[in-house]
Order: sequence, then C-alpha cells, then structure tokens
Amino acid sequence: EQSDAATEACLALKDTATVSWINVTGLNDTEAVARIGKGFGIHPLVLEDILHTTQRPKLEDLGDYLFLVVRMLFVEPGAREIHSEQISFILTKHCLITFQERAGDVFDEIRDRLRQSHGRIRKMGPDYLLYALMDAIVDNYFVILEKTGEQIEGIEQALMENPNSLLLNELYAQKRELLYIRKAIWPLREAIGGLERGESNLLSAKISAYLRDLYDHTIQVIDTVETFRDMLSGVQDLYLSSMGHKTNQVMQVLTIIATIFIPLTFVAGIYGMNFEHMPELGWKYSYPVFWVVMVTLSLGMLYGFRRMKWF
Amino acid sequence: EQSDAATEACLALKDTATVSWINVTGLNDTEAVARIGKGFGIHPLVLEDILHTTQRPKLEDLGDYLFLVVRMLFVEPGAREIHSEQISFILTKHCLITFQERAGDVFDEIRDRLRQSHGRIRKMGPDYLLYALMDAIVDNYFVILEKTGEQIEGIEQALMENPNSLLLNELYAQKRELLYIRKAIWPLREAIGGLERGESNLLSAKISAYLRDLYDHTIQVIDTVETFRDMLSGVQDLYLSSMGHKTNQVMQVLTIIATIFIPLTFVAGIYGMNFEHMPELGWKYSYPVFWVVMVTLSLGMLYGFRRMKWF
Amino acid sequence: EQSDAATEACLALKDTATVSWINVTGLNDTEAVARIGKGFGIHPLVLEDILHTTQRPKLEDLGDYLFLVVRMLFVEPGAREIHSEQISFILTKHCLITFQERAGDVFDEIRDRLRQSHGRIRKMGPDYLLYALMDAIVDNYFVILEKTGEQIEGIEQALMENPNSLLLNELYAQKRELLYIRKAIWPLREAIGGLERGESNLLSAKISAYLRDLYDHTIQVIDTVETFRDMLSGVQDLYLSSMGHKTNQVMQVLTIIATIFIPLTFVAGIYGMNFEHMPELGWKYSYPVFWVVMVTLSLGMLYGFRRMKWF
Amino acid sequence: EQSDAATEACLALKDTATVSWINVTGLNDTEAVARIGKGFGIHPLVLEDILHTTQRPKLEDLGDYLFLVVRMLFVEPGAREIHSEQISFILTKHCLITFQERAGDVFDEIRDRLRQSHGRIRKMGPDYLLYALMDAIVDNYFVILEKTGEQIEGIEQALMENPNSLLLNELYAQKRELLYIRKAIWPLREAIGGLERGESNLLSAKISAYLRDLYDHTIQVIDTVETFRDMLSGVQDLYLSSMGHKTNQVMQVLTIIATIFIPLTFVAGIYGMNFEHMPELGWKYSYPVFWVVMVTLSLGMLYGFRRMKWF
Amino acid sequence: EQSDAATEACLALKDTATVSWINVTGLNDTEAVARIGKGFGIHPLVLEDILHTTQRPKLEDLGDYLFLVVRMLFVEPGAREIHSEQISFILTKHCLITFQERAGDVFDEIRDRLRQSHGRIRKMGPDYLLYALMDAIVDNYFVILEKTGEQIEGIEQALMENPNSLLLNELYAQKRELLYIRKAIWPLREAIGGLERGESNLLSAKISAYLRDLYDHTIQVIDTVETFRDMLSGVQDLYLSSMGHKTNQVMQVLTIIATIFIPLTFVAGIYGMNFEHMPELGWKYSYPVFWVVMVTLSLGMLYGFRRMKWF
Repeated sequence: EQSDAATEACLALKDTATVSWINVTGLNDTEAVARIGKGFGIHPLVLEDILHTTQRPKLEDLGDYLFLVVRMLFVEPGAREIHSEQISFILTKHCLITFQERAGDVFDEIRDRLRQSHGRIRKMGPDYLLYALMDAIVDNYFVILEKTGEQIEGIEQALMENPNSLLLNELYAQKRELLYIRKAIWPLREAIGGLERGESNLLSAKISAYLRDLYDHTIQVIDTVETFRDMLSGVQDLYLSSMGHKTNQVMQVLTIIATIFIPLTFVAGIYGMNFEHMPELGWKYSYPVFWVVMVTLSLGMLYGFRRMKWF
Repeated sequence: EQSDAATEACLALKDTATVSWINVTGLNDTEAVARIGKGFGIHPLVLEDILHTTQRPKLEDLGDYLFLVVRMLFVEPGAREIHSEQISFILTKHCLITFQERAGDVFDEIRDRLRQSHGRIRKMGPDYLLYALMDAIVDNYFVILEKTGEQIEGIEQALMENPNSLLLNELYAQKRELLYIRKAIWPLREAIGGLERGESNLLSAKISAYLRDLYDHTIQVIDTVETFRDMLSGVQDLYLSSMGHKTNQVMQVLTIIATIFIPLTFVAGIYGMNFEHMPELGWKYSYPVFWVVMVTLSLGMLYGFRRMKWF
Repeated sequence: EQSDAATEACLALKDTATVSWINVTGLNDTEAVARIGKGFGIHPLVLEDILHTTQRPKLEDLGDYLFLVVRMLFVEPGAREIHSEQISFILTKHCLITFQERAGDVFDEIRDRLRQSHGRIRKMGPDYLLYALMDAIVDNYFVILEKTGEQIEGIEQALMENPNSLLLNELYAQKRELLYIRKAIWPLREAIGGLERGESNLLSAKISAYLRDLYDHTIQVIDTVETFRDMLSGVQDLYLSSMGHKTNQVMQVLTIIATIFIPLTFVAGIYGMNFEHMPELGWKYSYPVFWVVMVTLSLGMLYGFRRMKWF
Repeated sequence: EQSDAATEACLALKDTATVSWINVTGLNDTEAVARIGKGFGIHPLVLEDILHTTQRPKLEDLGDYLFLVVRMLFVEPGAREIHSEQISFILTKHCLITFQERAGDVFDEIRDRLRQSHGRIRKMGPDYLLYALMDAIVDNYFVILEKTGEQIEGIEQALMENPNSLLLNELYAQKRELLYIRKAIWPLREAIGGLERGESNLLSAKISAYLRDLYDHTIQVIDTVETFRDMLSGVQDLYLSSMGHKTNQVMQVLTIIATIFIPLTFVAGIYGMNFEHMPELGWKYSYPVFWVVMVTLSLGMLYGFRRMKWF
Repeated sequence: EQSDAATEACLALKDTATVSWINVTGLNDTEAVARIGKGFGIHPLVLEDILHTTQRPKLEDLGDYLFLVVRMLFVEPGAREIHSEQISFILTKHCLITFQERAGDVFDEIRDRLRQSHGRIRKMGPDYLLYALMDAIVDNYFVILEKTGEQIEGIEQALMENPNSLLLNELYAQKRELLYIRKAIWPLREAIGGLERGESNLLSAKISAYLRDLYDHTIQVIDTVETFRDMLSGVQDLYLSSMGHKTNQVMQVLTIIATIFIPLTFVAGIYGMNFEHMPELGWKYSYPVFWVVMVTLSLGMLYGFRRMKWF
C-alpha cells in the first residue's frame, strides 16, 4: 500500500520474501507506471493494456507473472450513478501490484483487515490477496444487482397501477445498466475460470477452493443478470400490452359516445331544417315521439355494445 | 433424523458404521451449524455456502465428502404461493447431513418409510438416501409444473373467449414463476449430471442407475419449463393479436357510423341555415327528395364498406 | 405377436433361438407387465418408466438388453386430433418386446408383412424388427407434418385475402401442435443417434446402415418442424402487419371524411344561428357563394390528402 | 454423358480405366435406376434415397463409393420462380454418376468444356469432376442471392418513400425464399465439410485445396443468407415503425381538426336554438363578437398543439 | 513498397534475405497479379480469391506461405460513408505481399515509421509487419465504432426529447452498418485466432504475444458491436413504445373533446328543431337552465376522465 510517488521504494520491495501489495492509483502518471513495469520486467504490451482503460476483462499467464484485467463497478455512497473503473492486477511470486484509474474503490475493508494485522490475508501469499480483492469486486456486483432488482420491482409495481411514459425511460435505463454489467461480467467469468483451471505455479494449491468459490459467484452474477434481463423484457411486454389495452379502452369510450350521439344529432339536424313543407313539424305529438325514438335508439345501441363486451 | 439442538449427539454418530441422516432445520443457529461443520471436518467455505441461502444449485466433490446445494420448491397445502428453500446436502461415507432453512418440506413420505423400517432406504447406504431425497425434490417440481400447466391452459381458454387485462397480469405472473423454476432447475441438472458421471467413491455402483433416472427427470422438468415458456409467449402473442383485432373492430364501427352520418348531418345543417334566398327551402318536394338522397347515400356507403370487407 | 394375457407363453419364448416380437397392448394390467419384467430380468426402474407414460424419448443400454422409449404420433383415420402414445421397446438377444398404451398404432403394415412371411423382417434378427417399427413411427411424423404444412399454407392463403381473427386461433393451434411434435422428436434424434453410434452387441453390423437412414429421417423431421415454426412466425408477423395496415386504412377513411365535413358542418351551423344582426343572411348571393366556398374547401383538402398519399 | 436409355452401355463403362460421367436425367424410370444401382453394387437404401427426391443434403461414405445428395437451385432464363431439384452423386474409383429429376440444370458450361476437350476437367479424375459440378451448383446460389439482395434493397427503397401493404407481401415472399435456401445450404455445408475432412481414398490429395475453396463458398452463402435475414427483419421493423408513425400522423390530423371544430360547432349550435328568451340573439354586436371568440379559440388550440409538437 | 508496375523488380526481391513489403494497389491489372503469383509460386485458387474482392475474411496455411484475407473498413477524411475494401496478405519467409483494391488505406502511419527507419518494424521480420498492418486495420474498426456509438447516443437523446420518423431511418442505417461490420469482424476473429494458434514456421515465437493482443482487440470489437446491436434494439423498442404512448395521448385528447362536446351539440341541436309544439322553447328560464345543465355535464365528464387517469 503505497502512494504512486514512491515508485523506487516499490521496486526495492520486488525481491523481498515478504508479501507486498503495491496499489498504483491514477494512471495519468504514465512515467511512473513505465518505471514500475520496467522494474518488474513487464512486457510492453501488458503495460499498454494497463494504461488503455477500456480493456475487456481478461487473464494472461506470462510465465513469471499473471496479468489480470477486471472491471470494478461501484456506487459511491450518496451517488446514484454506477462508477466503472478498470483494475489491473500483476501477480508475481511475492508481490501483487494493482493499478486503478483513480482513488475510491471497494477495497477499504481489506485495507482495514491488513492494517489491523489479523485475518487470513496477512498469513497467506499474494495469491490469496488477489482472491480477496477479486472477491470484494465480485461481491460489489451483487450490491449493485440488488439495487437493480429493487428498481425493476418498483417499475413493475408502478406499471401495474398506472402505465405511463416516465416508467418507459426508467425501464430503458435499467436495460442499459444491465447491458453494461453483462459486458463486464461475462469475460470476468472466463478470466476467473482460467485462474481456477490454470496450472500457474504462482497460485498455491490451497487457493484453488477459494477460486472455485469466486467462480461460482461470477456464475451467480451472470444468472442474476440474465434473469433480470428476462424480467425487464417481461415488464416491457407488460407495458406495451397495458398501453394497447388502454388505447383500446379509450377508443371504446369514444366509439360508444360517438356512435350513440352522431345519429341522434343527425335526426335533430333534420328537424332543424327550414323547408317550408315538412309535415312532421306541425304534428302535435312530434316532439314527444322524437324523444321516445331517441331514447329507444340509444338504449338499443348500448345493449349492442354490451353484447360485444365493450364495457 | 434429529432436532438441531442435539448437535453433540450428531457428532457421536459420525463414525458409527450404521447409516445416519442428520436433518438440520433452521439456519439461524449458526453456532450449531459451525459445530457440526467442525465435527465433520467441513471446509469453512462450504459452511458459508450452507448459511448463505441464495446459492446457485451446485455439486462439489471435496474428497472426504460431497457437498450438494439444491433449491426445493413446494406449495404448502392450502397456500397459493410457491415456497422456495435452499437444501444443502453433505454426504460422507456413513452419513447424510441435510440443512434446511425452516421446517416444512417434501420429505415426509421418506420419513414415514424410514420410520416404518421398510423399503430400500433402510437397507442401502446414505447415497441411496441422498437419491431418495433428491428424487422427492425433483418430483415436486412436476407437481408445481402441473399446476402451472393448468393455469396456462386456463388463461388460454379465457383469452379465446374474452381478452381482457386481468389475464395479462396473470400471464405475467406465470412467466415470472417459470423464470424462477428455470433458474433453479438448470444448475440442478448440471449438479445431478456431475453426480452421475462423478467417480466419487462415496457413491456405490448400484446407485448409478437411480442417478441416471433422476437426471432424466430433471431433463424432463427443463423440457416442460421450456415448452411452457414457448406456450406462454404464444399466449401473449395471441393476446396482442386479439387486442389489435378488437381495436380494429372498434375503429371500424366508429368509422362506419361517423362516415355515414357526418356528411348527412352536414346536409341537414345546410337546410337549417337562415339565408333569405335559398330556393330549395320553398320547393314543394324538397323534404321527400332530401330523404331519398340521404337514404341512397347511406346505402351506397354501406355497400362500399361491405366491399372493403369491414363487416 | 401375442395378446398380453398369455404372459407365460411369452416367457417360454425367452430363450428360444427364433426371433420373437411380444407386443403388450394396454398398460393397465401392471401385474402382467411386472411378470414379463421379472421373467426377462428387467430393472425395476425400467419397468417404472414403461408404466409411467409421460417419459421423454430415450435410449438406455443395460448390458443384457436395450431399453428405448419413443413417442408415437398418429392420426386415426377420420379423426382430426393427433393421438400421442408412448411406445417402449425392450430389445434382447432373441426377442423384441414392445409396450403400448392401447390398441391402434402405425405398425399394421409391418404385421401384414410378418404374417405373409415375406420381406426382410422375417429373415433378419430382432434388431431389424426394431428398426422397422421405429421407421414406421418416424415415417408417420412425416404424414402428420405434411398435413400441418398444408394447413399452414391454407392459413397463409386465407390471410393474404382477408385477415381475420379466426385465422389467428388456427395459427395458434398449429403453433402448439408443432411445439408438441418438437418435444417428441428432439430427444428421439438423440436416442436414435445413440443407437447408431452405440457399440451394443445386440445390434448386428448389418443394421447400422438402416439406423443411419433412420437417423437422417429424424433430422429431416426436425428440419421440417423448425422451418414450419419459422414459417408460422412469418405468417403471424404478416397477420400483425396486415392488421396494422387495415387499422391505418380505416383511420384514414375516418379522418378524410371527418376532416372534410366537420369544418363544413361548422360553417353551416353558423348560418343556422338566429342572431338578429347577421348581414350575410340577407344578401342575395350568400347561398351560391356558400356552396362555392364549401366545394372549394373540400377539393383543397382532398388534394392535400392526396399529396400526403392517404389514398 | 449418356441418355438414361443406354443403361447397359453405362454398366460397360464401369471398369474402364478412363473417367466417365454418367448423367441420369428423369427419375420416373425407376427400373433403369435400379439396374444401374445393381450394376454398380449400390446399397438399396441409397437407391431409395436417390428416388425419394425430398432428401436433406448429405454425404455418405460407403467404402467403395461416396454418395452425395445436394439440392440444386436455379432460375430458368426468363422465369421468376426458383426451381429446386435434388441431384444425387455416386462417386466410384473411375466413374461419377449423377441423378437429376429432369432436364435443365446449371452444368451446361461444364458440358461445353468437356466436349471441347480442354480445361482441367478432362485431365483429372472423377473427383475433380464432382468438385466442378458442385462448384457450379454453389456458384448458382450466389446468382440467386444476388437477385434476392437486389429485391430486398428495392423493397427497402420503396418503403422509405411510401410504406404500403404490397411491399409487405413481397417482403414475406423474400423471407420464405431465404428460409428455403437456408434449408438447402446448411446441410450442404456439413456434407462438403465432410468431403474435405474425409479420408476417403476415392478423393485424390490434389482435390483437397479445391474442396476447401468450395467449403469457403458455402460458408459465404450461409453468411449472406443470414445477413439477408437480418436485413429483412430490419426492413420489417422499419415497416411496422413507419406504419405506426403514419397512423400516429393520421390520428393527429383528425384530432386537431376535430378538437378545433367540435367545440365551435357546439357554440354555433347554441345560437341556432329556438328558445324565445335568448338575450344574445337580439344584441347588436353578437355576431362579430361570436367570430372574434371563435377565431381566438381556434388560434389558442393551434398554439397548444404546436407546443405539444403535434405538427 | 513499390508501384505495381515494377512487378519484375518485385520478383527479384523474392529470395533476398532482407525483409520486403510488396504493396499491390489496384486489382484491375490482373496480368500483373498473375505474374507476381507465378513468381512466388502461389496456387491459382489463391490468386482467384485475391482478385475476387467479395471474399469472407479467412486464413489459409499453404505450407510455403500464409494467405490471409481481411476486410479493411475506413472513413476517408471528410467523407461520411464507410469505405470497405478487401486486403489480401501473402506472407512468405522473407516477404509480405499485400493486395488492395485501390489507393487509400489505414497504413500511412506504418509507412511513415518504415521510411523514418525507426521502430520495431524495421528490425523484425515480415510476420511483425503483418501484425502491424493487421493491428492498424483492427484499430480502425474502433475508430468507426466510436463514431457509431456517438451516433446511437445522439439518436437516443433525440428520441427522448421528441420521437419522430427521421430518427427511424437513421436508426435503421446504423443497424445496417453494424450488420456490415459484424459480417467483417466475426470471420476475422477466426482468422486471427488461427494465426495465433497456428504452428506455421513462418511466424516467429516472439510474434505470438502480439497476435494474442490483436486477437483480444478483435474480441473487443465483437463485444462492442454486439452491445451496440443490443442498444439499438433497445432504442427501437423505446421508439415504438414512445410512439404508442404518443398515439395514446392523441387519442385521449380527441376522446375527451369529442365525448364532452358531441352530447352537448346534440342537446343544442334538439332546441334548434322547428317543431311547432315544443313547450320548453317558450319557457322563461329555459336558456339559463340549458347552460347550467351543459356546464354540469361537462364538469362531470371531466371528473370521470380524471378518475380514469386520462390526464
């Protein structure tokens, strides 16, 4: 745990027998990264990948060291937006170097445990530390997914009560978010699967059970993401169907009103004509008969609509 | 079959040659679980998985024992909701330990058979007991699916008669339920497939045919779930199409009525005008001619609609 | 070919060198089935599968005998409904036992050939008989699919001429039927593939070419089912699009009529007002001018609609 | 290259060292086919497949000869319909026999080259001839797809300008055609892949590069078919969206007109009433005030629609 | 780096020990290509593939040389259209020959580096040059995708504000473009994967890390394309839903106005009738009562619509 200024100090740690965690924060200082890279004998292509922060999560076994790129997602306390950051790991025999884009991550608990000098982390090698950090990252996916799950259920609830177009945008936002998580977690599964199967002698035998556990967690994240995607598309179908249903209802109201009153208005219009020779105008009971006919017609039409199950 | 209080008694059973089934109900007492775990030499990660009741079904062969996590779905008699619970199995040489979240499960029949001291269960090893319990769980999936199947057919029937929006919500509920079952059964298939293929010496040769049978059952559950999903999406398409058809019909009624009467009303409106110089108003046969024209126009339009196959 | 009463007689045939076909019809007499099972040394789980008639098609090689479950679909002459039935085959060295749910099947032609003592069936072993029966079952899938194909084309034709909602229900019925056939044929392919690849010594070398042919047929059934599914979903899309198009046309008619006459009616309404001071009412050419304005307005709007390509 | 009458002559060619191409046209004469089959020692199931012209494309290695079934698609000059025909190939050591349903195929160019005794075809074995014929068939798929591609672009263009329902039927026809091509090409890929990988000693080493080329072509056909399918479904989505958009526009015109004039007509209707006591009727400026109010109301509503972005 | 006129000069370079890059621009001069082909001993089918510029990207190992076909996509500065071109590579022991359809490519930077005689390119073999050129091509995919991504976000933004039909066509254009890129990149991935795994002795051991990097980049391109496709289909769903919502709103406005005023107009029409015997016409308070009834009715209906959540 060092600031990235003290690069030289880092390099001094290289061959020490004790386990070290070098945490490089901020990749703007490419000079420092290059110096660390040189000190630890890291391939230039790997360094390029570290600095290029739009990598796809992946694992590479380069003999002397393992190179692992992961995407860390987290929501800063109080914020709403998901913050995404690339974390690169270099695991050598005695050392774990992590590169992160900027301060702020999900490792605080592990740092605490390290500082308080207890827990398995201190006792075991850098491979266990790698596991612990990865586990913290994957666990945080669950935190994010839990929130997503709640929001989907909220949208669903709101939709059942009153479908409106604000929900639509929210639904779409959730969809994009899942797309994003999905893009990060699928290759992560591959990478962790590679770690677990991998015969790298940088990983001790004891670590294997932990890696298997980690792998199971990524599978669970994927399962949840896929289920949420299915749920969202279900919610969207529900929205469209509800919308169609609502349009249908509106149409029916319009049609019932229009179909009843347009003919009646026509009849009223007829007797509003100014022809000189309209015998009905002079009859005594024309007006009451007019009303009787109107009411009968209306009721007849209402009965017809009822039979067509329009209301 | 013991209450979870008698943990010590359980441990005493550990090395007995007779087959034992230790059924731990309720995972709140993490202390007791930990003690059992320690007594049987179970890996801490496994214990964590047992206590963390949102595991994905899986099988792990840890040499001395097999660890199997399964999701049990059942509907309590009288209830409508599906109850879901995680069941963990630990299979050692002489012992089967099951952990369930709370009382109430699908094992009652097996308990009865055990108590009455007959059936194959008593005679065979703990691996057969594992099979019997798993079989009870998988069989119960069929019970649930049968109910689901009936509900889907009910929705379908109701939809053919009168599409309305209540059906929509029911349909959506079924969809979610299937999503849920699916999430539980797919990894279960993997786990059971692993058991069947597995070369663990904890499983006797005789058990293999039973496991193959169990595996076939899970495949059948998956087949049924997928068929139901296809059917549900068919029903939904039907709903949408019916809805579209209904809207269309409503529109046609409105259009027929409006198209016939709006022009007629306009004509009536003309002769309701108060211009001083309107020759038609004074003519003797204006009114009968007006009626003839109106009726002719209406019939012409009706004929036109008929030709356009609007009714 | 025996009635299921003569179970004992069947068992006597067991070790005869001549090839026998024991055809058990009706599974209600579970006793008889059990006795046959015992006589031929069949595993209890297999017997259970035979009696439980909702099995998924599958093949099991149990060393001494092969167990094959298949779903036979056929339309009884004159009927419309597809009848589905489970057929179980037990192939031993000298014997083929078939279990079917009730009388009535697709094997009549084979029975005829056997009775007339000609054809390859008599000369070759029970494995060839198995092939012949399976072939009869798979060939009948084609018969059913041909009918389905004709119905789909009928729906399509009818739809092009006049889309209505009856077609919708027919389309949905076809979809369900295909779902059903599909559920039966996919695992059948697996089972036959297993037979063909299988190294069971119950199958003679000569039979292999026949099994390959049978396998090709199942693939062809699957291909056809998938193509029909694609076609049906195409037809459904066509229905929806046609429906949308029709709604659109209806809307356009309504809008054209309403947009032309509603303003005209308003103008007529104005000159129907009874204000004492309306100078136009007294003018000499008001009425002809009114008509000129009305006609001009209508033509203008018609021209506008034409330009918007509404008709 | 012989007429199918001269079957005996064909058989005479069987063991000649020179390469022969026997092209059997018309499968009605099953006798002749049977005689050729017998002469060349062809398995009865193969002969059945040749005569049954709804085979799925496939390759079978029967030791002494290769059997290949292919679907040839071609458009006869001047015709619009795609003509589909089954071509069966039997490749023996010295001979290539082709069976086609009727005269008319895509091999004319190859026949020309053979007659003119130049080109590689004469010099190389029957396996090269097989390649050349297959290549002619696959190349013709491209010809058909090119035409399809042009038609899709035509539909697309027409749709952008004016969506109407004729396009819908054309689109659907293209979809079916692609379904058809797809059903023919996917198994063809498998068969050619089998040829290429196959270790049959009927295929010389030199032919392998040609087969690889042929295989690449089938992959390219598949790629194109899939892309066209994607494009068609994109065009269909576009159609639906355009249609929805058009309906929307029609609705807006109707609503704007109706919403403005219906209230105005109501007001005009009020002053058309014949109540004896309506003070406004006698006022001097009622009529001009009426007009001012009408115009103000209309403009207000237009402004409102504008703000709602309805036009 | 030579003009394609100097073909002979090229051939002279063939067996030189120094690394050469022969860049053939313009494939119209098939003579020149044929001569180069002959000089380097290239298989006629390969030459055909080079000249036929609609190849699917692929890799072929022909022993003495590797043949690689790639699709280069680039946007010429200032242009909007994506320009697509086939690039063929022939990699021999000492030489890299590239064939491109016409001048203008993405290799300018590499040419600069070569001319300035620095960078790794000069020092390493033709395999590194191949990598560098491929890398330039793949990197340019990212440039194009970045632009596409921005356009999708632009469409999305515009859609949220005001859905209209121009966006629809833009959306469709993006969809086609992605289809196009996808068709180019999927087989490229295969080809590069083949290069990386390939045991060709034309590729030095050192190059392997670079090829792995290149492979990762193609995977990333594919990932991005798939994500964009998902996003576009999400945007399209959003469009359809927004459209449906808008139609719904329009319908509601129409229905509210029509439902309120049509009955009122009918009532006004009644009192505009000219019957001689209509008692209400003579009553003193008819007119104010008429207004009270009208206003009450309207408010009642508005209240009803409010309760139905129509506005």
